[in-house]
Amino acid sequence: MTAANNTYDVVVVGGGISGLSAAKLLKANGLSPVVLEARDRVGGRTFTVQNKQAKWVDLGGAYIGPTQNRILRLAKEYGVKTYKVNEKENLLHYVNGKAYPFKSSFPPTWNPLVHLDFNNFFRTMDEMGNEIPKEAPWRAPRAEEWDKMTMQQLIEKICWTSAVRRFAKLFVNVNVTSEPHEVSALWFLWYVRQCGGIMRIFSTTNGGQERKFEGGANQISECMARELGDRVKLQSAVYRIDQSGDMVVVETLDKQIYKARYVIVAIPPALNNKIHFNPELPPLRNQLINRVPMGSVIKCMIYYRENFWRKKGYCGSMVIEEEGSPIGLTLDDTKPDGTVPAIMGFILASRCRELSHLTKEERLKRICDIFAKVLGTDEALHPVHYEEKNWCEEEYSGGCYTTYFPPGILTQFGRVLREPSGRLYFAGTETATAWSGYMEGAVEAGERAARETMCAMGKIHPSQIWQSEPESSRSEWDFS
Amino acid sequence: MTAANNTYDVVVVGGGISGLSAAKLLKANGLSPVVLEARDRVGGRTFTVQNKQAKWVDLGGAYIGPTQNRILRLAKEYGVKTYKVNEKENLLHYVNGKAYPFKSSFPPTWNPLVHLDFNNFFRTMDEMGNEIPKEAPWRAPRAEEWDKMTMQQLIEKICWTSAVRRFAKLFVNVNVTSEPHEVSALWFLWYVRQCGGIMRIFSTTNGGQERKFEGGANQISECMARELGDRVKLQSAVYRIDQSGDMVVVETLDKQIYKARYVIVAIPPALNNKIHFNPELPPLRNQLINRVPMGSVIKCMIYYRENFWRKKGYCGSMVIEEEGSPIGLTLDDTKPDGTVPAIMGFILASRCRELSHLTKEERLKRICDIFAKVLGTDEALHPVHYEEKNWCEEEYSGGCYTTYFPPGILTQFGRVLREPSGRLYFAGTETATAWSGYMEGAVEAGERAARETMCAMGKIHPSQIWQSEPESSRSEWDFS
Repeated sequence: MTAANNTYDVVVVGGGISGLSAAKLLKANGLSPVVLEARDRVGGRTFTVQNKQAKWVDLGGAYIGPTQNRILRLAKEYGVKTYKVNEKENLLHYVNGKAYPFKSSFPPTWNPLVHLDFNNFFRTMDEMGNEIPKEAPWRAPRAEEWDKMTMQQLIEKICWTSAVRRFAKLFVNVNVTSEPHEVSALWFLWYVRQCGGIMRIFSTTNGGQERKFEGGANQISECMARELGDRVKLQSAVYRIDQSGDMVVVETLDKQIYKARYVIVAIPPALNNKIHFNPELPPLRNQLINRVPMGSVIKCMIYYRENFWRKKGYCGSMVIEEEGSPIGLTLDDTKPDGTVPAIMGFILASRCRELSHLTKEERLKRICDIFAKVLGTDEALHPVHYEEKNWCEEEYSGGCYTTYFPPGILTQFGRVLREPSGRLYFAGTETATAWSGYMEGAVEAGERAARETMCAMGKIHPSQIWQSEPESSRSEWDFS
Repeated sequence: MTAANNTYDVVVVGGGISGLSAAKLLKANGLSPVVLEARDRVGGRTFTVQNKQAKWVDLGGAYIGPTQNRILRLAKEYGVKTYKVNEKENLLHYVNGKAYPFKSSFPPTWNPLVHLDFNNFFRTMDEMGNEIPKEAPWRAPRAEEWDKMTMQQLIEKICWTSAVRRFAKLFVNVNVTSEPHEVSALWFLWYVRQCGGIMRIFSTTNGGQERKFEGGANQISECMARELGDRVKLQSAVYRIDQSGDMVVVETLDKQIYKARYVIVAIPPALNNKIHFNPELPPLRNQLINRVPMGSVIKCMIYYRENFWRKKGYCGSMVIEEEGSPIGLTLDDTKPDGTVPAIMGFILASRCRELSHLTKEERLKRICDIFAKVLGTDEALHPVHYEEKNWCEEEYSGGCYTTYFPPGILTQFGRVLREPSGRLYFAGTETATAWSGYMEGAVEAGERAARETMCAMGKIHPSQIWQSEPESSRSEWDFS
């Protein structure tokens, strides 16, 4: 089928990594997709800014690591290099007003009781996670029981010491940009599990934050968009999908009408609400999309003239447990060649909501204040540049990094998350079964949804919809 | 300002009771409003069906009671009569497989320990509620602490006996069509409090379910719509609001463009998501509207040839605590003149989700089975007619009866619920401070939002925005 008359095989709603990888796969299979993107840029929750001060900076999704084989495959295809986030020097753990240098994925402790409690927390989380099927967490043996609990309740149940409880809160904040009392225990256990467990999700070296893309994460989307050419329509927010006729009719804010045999909705579940559906969605899906909010985060980049922390023996990673601190976690964001010294920090969950009303300058001041305390030097008080992105204000993301499930929702509504509705198929990182919430999950979901439509067209067998990914050989993408 | 060129003083989004009362008040003050309603009918979550078998039946909001003075004022103005829900004979409490007749608002118990526990639960709930400001629950002295808890946690904390815990679950199910583990304790305590407390919210006689409107609740909206004439536009779902110019521009699915000085958004907070905003909403409001889902309920009406329950000495009210029962609460729905014998039952919260996939006939069968057990007669197995409405499937309600707040949301986002955003003002029963979630709250909110726009136009003083309502004298609206 040709693209005459705005008619396509598949309309893909959303030009993030998920939608673009769906369209890329369809095109590679000789089909005719079109991607409708609400913003004036592709990339969705990845967002690379280029300017004189920062050269380039990822104000959205940026980190990648081992086992994320699909996104690494795309990077390799497009020749986008990766480099290691600096973790050569000491990390810092700031707690009770003091900074403790350490070298490992998690801050150590000298108190043997706390040590035991830490180990027990991590082991219990991973053991519980192992009981949860990645592709169907609602089928876990104790799904109902765990889904009725918030993570706050689980933390209080598992952890005996205030030190570990406090760290567990930070662990939730950092991984899912929400508060322990906001999220279902079942959902959070699943989330950690489908990222490979406690060590993998939280680590820099050998974990989810091991690397970044040289030049910025948005290159992946831009390369896919370039390949798709005029099949990607920017500033084309979809507000209506009508399945009542022979072809599915999709309408955009710029008054265009697209027709297709199938539609792939490659946006966060909550953003499905932006679309008026005819016929209406089935009852469970209609309610699901009002029950799965996006997390809250401001990603902050603080630039300095010099990389003073490395000179002091610190790599730039800080785990900050302090009631009034705007930032919970930092990582070095200096360029791989050592230029543009910078520290990346996240303002997370309730802290993000509390500080949203401040001016950019006020937020920067508070961040520098805590950096000075943690790094033990006034050099932190003198940034030369600042970039930030409050993802809560983005109408077409709703928040970042990803969707969270409040208590009770995953067991009752989870099974309709990627259940097709007529000729609608659902992609987006939230519908993935590994590294959901990450760029990797976006690719998994986009390609799976593309194959679902190909299956519906009779081009592939149902058994071909889900495909595993060969391990990306490290030598092929490790350029650092 | 005249209505030339689709230009108005105020565009009201939503033709439920809230939007219509806003427009009615604006028109009465010489202003020019227009109401844009997505459906082909007015009334929103009230929905009266007329047919031969049922004569008329309220498949949506129906119940009214003392202290709901605003909705009663409207009823009086339009000459809509009320009548008492039948509670002359015994109520029935079904628990542990047995039916116990009783006469009072709550099922009694013969076990003195359970009795004490019941009293303690009710007293504690009301005492906690009294600490919560109706207009600003986030300012309660212990707001943070209570908002981090689910009602499930609070129930486990307050209640000692399994009997009271089980009843407390039903109490949450019935009042807010959601599960105790899904909702914030702070929010639920506020909800009960702003309805006048435990007794008022749950009672039929002298409570929220005391009466119904003869002929159906939708008459209120229909009368207002008639008064507004061609200022009410049906099948006009709003998908875009643009505040970037001199006038606010509102676009509807039927390709109409309306312009106004101000907009009143009189729809549930979650449905704000259906609208694409320019400029984007502020960060907290952008995230709020993804965090406040609508409850889950199927309202069921089972019709019988004879009013056999009254003959057995039962009024038709059943409080059903049984694991497998589809229905949690029933009320007599026979017409005030004794014709059309019927029982109304709610399928609530998780039960609603579990039974949504059944056919209408299967649901009816399960309902009749439990009725036969509770009423102790096979007569219940032979209905002559059945009506039901699953509100979860309504794209333009999202669910019923009202919005619930999961843990952590009210303290972080509550204060933006009715905070104007540029020239947008917010109505809908969710933004009310008394009987929010009810028809009464819809009127309070609509009229308050109308006065907010009048204040913005310089027509009234800010001190006039919030107005108390004189008590509706019972003799004036008690026709039964």
